[in-house]
Amino acid sequence: MVAQVKRPRRFLVRFEGQRKPRKFEKMFLMGLDIGSSECKSAIFTLGGDLVSIQTCEYSMSQPQPGWCELNPKEVWIKLIETMKKSVHISNVKSEDIVGISISSQGEAIIPVGKNGEWLYPAIHAFDNRTIPQCEWWGRNLGRLEVFKITGQPLHPMYSINKIMWIRDNNPAVFRRTRKFLCFEDYILFKLTGKFATDYSIASRTMAFNVVKKHWSSEMLSAANLSEEILPDAFPSGKEVGEINSVSAKETGLKEGTIVSTGGHDQACGALGVGVVQSGPTMDATGTVECLAVASEKPHLDKRTLSSNYPCYCHVKDDMYIMLAWNTTAGSLLRWMRDQFCEKEKDEAKKAAKSAYDLMTERAKSSPSGSFGLYVLPYFMGSGTPTFNPNARGVIMGLTISHTKADVIRAVLEGITYDLRQNIELLESYQLKINALRAIGGGARSEFWLKLKADITGKKVELPNTTESAVLGAAILAGAGAKIFSNVEAATEKIYKEKKVYYPNEKNQSIYESRYQVYKEIYPTFSTIFKKFRNSNF
Amino acid sequence: MVAQVKRPRRFLVRFEGQRKPRKFEKMFLMGLDIGSSECKSAIFTLGGDLVSIQTCEYSMSQPQPGWCELNPKEVWIKLIETMKKSVHISNVKSEDIVGISISSQGEAIIPVGKNGEWLYPAIHAFDNRTIPQCEWWGRNLGRLEVFKITGQPLHPMYSINKIMWIRDNNPAVFRRTRKFLCFEDYILFKLTGKFATDYSIASRTMAFNVVKKHWSSEMLSAANLSEEILPDAFPSGKEVGEINSVSAKETGLKEGTIVSTGGHDQACGALGVGVVQSGPTMDATGTVECLAVASEKPHLDKRTLSSNYPCYCHVKDDMYIMLAWNTTAGSLLRWMRDQFCEKEKDEAKKAAKSAYDLMTERAKSSPSGSFGLYVLPYFMGSGTPTFNPNARGVIMGLTISHTKADVIRAVLEGITYDLRQNIELLESYQLKINALRAIGGGARSEFWLKLKADITGKKVELPNTTESAVLGAAILAGAGAKIFSNVEAATEKIYKEKKVYYPNEKNQSIYESRYQVYKEIYPTFSTIFKKFRNSNF
Repeated sequence: MVAQVKRPRRFLVRFEGQRKPRKFEKMFLMGLDIGSSECKSAIFTLGGDLVSIQTCEYSMSQPQPGWCELNPKEVWIKLIETMKKSVHISNVKSEDIVGISISSQGEAIIPVGKNGEWLYPAIHAFDNRTIPQCEWWGRNLGRLEVFKITGQPLHPMYSINKIMWIRDNNPAVFRRTRKFLCFEDYILFKLTGKFATDYSIASRTMAFNVVKKHWSSEMLSAANLSEEILPDAFPSGKEVGEINSVSAKETGLKEGTIVSTGGHDQACGALGVGVVQSGPTMDATGTVECLAVASEKPHLDKRTLSSNYPCYCHVKDDMYIMLAWNTTAGSLLRWMRDQFCEKEKDEAKKAAKSAYDLMTERAKSSPSGSFGLYVLPYFMGSGTPTFNPNARGVIMGLTISHTKADVIRAVLEGITYDLRQNIELLESYQLKINALRAIGGGARSEFWLKLKADITGKKVELPNTTESAVLGAAILAGAGAKIFSNVEAATEKIYKEKKVYYPNEKNQSIYESRYQVYKEIYPTFSTIFKKFRNSNF
Repeated sequence: MVAQVKRPRRFLVRFEGQRKPRKFEKMFLMGLDIGSSECKSAIFTLGGDLVSIQTCEYSMSQPQPGWCELNPKEVWIKLIETMKKSVHISNVKSEDIVGISISSQGEAIIPVGKNGEWLYPAIHAFDNRTIPQCEWWGRNLGRLEVFKITGQPLHPMYSINKIMWIRDNNPAVFRRTRKFLCFEDYILFKLTGKFATDYSIASRTMAFNVVKKHWSSEMLSAANLSEEILPDAFPSGKEVGEINSVSAKETGLKEGTIVSTGGHDQACGALGVGVVQSGPTMDATGTVECLAVASEKPHLDKRTLSSNYPCYCHVKDDMYIMLAWNTTAGSLLRWMRDQFCEKEKDEAKKAAKSAYDLMTERAKSSPSGSFGLYVLPYFMGSGTPTFNPNARGVIMGLTISHTKADVIRAVLEGITYDLRQNIELLESYQLKINALRAIGGGARSEFWLKLKADITGKKVELPNTTESAVLGAAILAGAGAKIFSNVEAATEKIYKEKKVYYPNEKNQSIYESRYQVYKEIYPTFSTIFKKFRNSNF
């Protein structure tokens, strides 16, 4: 796991208050990531090369159907574990880590008491207890007004709903709460003892004014909440404090190491693949597929809202980020694997291969367009632009001549048609998308990367480091520690692609006509999907 | 395979011209079946108990894409094989077989020369070379007019199109042809040396007037064909002749055995399960699922035609038979098995079980309605009522919580929703359907039989003998040999059910609401299916 430090430039850096300047090649940055089900710690060189990375899962609890919580203590303990391990295996001395920052899931909220102790488990983004609060906003401030202020299309997951829920359902906890913290903020507090957040994570609370870049008095007063219960919000990559004696002891990091604001994981991921201006776009294909586009100005009009694209503060100063996503990507492939590819699973096990590789190997044997099959990939409801929780998966065009290979290919094609639909829509809002920078598990499949190029007609780049969220956090750590004076310049130097895929003209023309059919499938179904909701299927 | 003769009644029968009367329990009937890909010979007691049955497959050849032919000689040789074997294993003396008759596939046509030798392979019902001839009828006599005369909704498969094709594309063969024979007729000729057919098989040529019950001069003159090229048409169960010395030698049957007209396999199958008056209905679930309803009068109006139900002469005098069908039933299950149930196939092999049994076992673990899944079973185009070759299979309502068990169940449910749709439509044409008598491979699955009851709301009967086509032929053999003076009475005596399944009220109510959704799926798709045709998918 120890990568070579590839740029042994030997210039000297003098930190404020430090007597001796330090050598460049002896300095490292640490990026942390608090994901929805696992955390990561990674150590990078200043040149952006990955030295070591460690991952640890934590458990989600479901105390009631539809509820979903995380234990903040467990997250912190697991994070410490990864920090220690990543330092240990890297052979990097902790005093050579010059800065730390955090990429984090958004929305989840933790009420902490006067000493920062957690008072209630973190209510996860997946938790659905706050539907009434969400509906309340719809009836009161209204969907468009909320969007114009916060850049978030109204949804139960946002933190402000969770805070309202705690107030209304657990007043004792609410009374004792000094601050409501998102995970980034919670970890910043654990490391430095200070309450702080950044603009991008603050945006995901739906209590932040993304244009004026401060907590929204309109949102807070509508909800009858005080700004006092929220941490101060800063730009990303700004020093919050230093590793204090307590956290130094717990984590093994050096006391005094500079800790800086990080950001929302999608924004950090975008930064990690150099998405700091419009043009190149992050395409993260994991369980979910997420497209992140950078924009100079916020898009907060009715039309953008109709497509359900959140538009909020990027971790790059003065930029905005817009997200499009598909709720099923990896999760749909996993479903195919677990339900219908037992044979491939067995074979993969015997050959010590990935079952996904065998599946895409099979998919390759089917031609572009999979003999007229179409898959509507809404196996967990649809993502953007329709964002319809009642949407369902559809496999259509089936004949008894179709094989499993055709169906697997059609699954991948369906997910990718959906990607194209989002790209086209974003472009119609004047966002520039000239390349997809592919990260996540899906980026490991060359077949899928080529498919993305053929279906979207865009150049698809495979970055050197696909661990872009922790890399983005590390870059922000470098900015906070004043190693990088300019995040954009640093990022552009660091970003390198490993391989580029261009669309194949012949396949592109086949997919062009298929896509025209695909686009009609969802509208065709919308009436039937409504029935699904009404019949409680 | 030797079943006990269960009714040892000892009365005596004297045949015309016979000196000594023969004992009832020493008399047997033989039913033959010429299916689309295999033939059968079966021996029954006069009480309808199966004594022995033998099956043999023949090969289909595809000399050009879309073409499909059978070699008449091969069919005859394979049929002889089954006849010999069925006699051999039954321990029945060939002189105790008092009559033979034939159930047969329709549409396929064989041109024979002056000595009855075949001049060209049998053009199968599945062969699509005659689309232009079919279109010619549409432009000339018109779809409704053809239906009013012949009871057949215009389609390339019917024999008259094939005769026209031979005339136009192989004039040398046409010139040498003395008779164009369907398979029943061909076998009747091989056994007796006489050219004859019955009304039901004649109906399937689309050259027969089903109301007046003779060859249609309108159809023949429109096609510019002479009636001379067709065999004489008789009611079913009428003596054609006797096993002659040549066929006696070839088949091992006794010279002089009475050979009678049989009928179209669907009609014979219906007769075999006592479907000789309106009420009980045959539901044959094999590769295709076919519903056969008996009717006192022909339904030859525009409305019936709009549902594509053929309505033609039954093998029971003066009755008509109407067919509804689904092009995929067993074939869809086989597709599921071969493409997605490799594991079940392996397990079945090891346990010497049927993979289908393991599949329905799994399906049972999913609840009624398979958690909101729907399958449109048109994996080979749709059957009645829409009969759309461009229709395709659809699996919809999928979520990542669905399992393979749910999908298998949904496949069976989809096929059965389609059955219900046909039942409802037939009932709306004043046909009475009060019970489904289930035969074919599908009738082996108790799970599926219960499902049919729950979804259709009808009583489902599993007949004692599911080999109903050969039994129907045997009954007609008995009628032709004057053992049975009344086909209806004989049939009703013979028909016994092994088990009856009644709808489960709770499941029925679940399926009621699911079916209402199912009915909307096809109309929703019809526009998209059109695109499939236009894009040549």
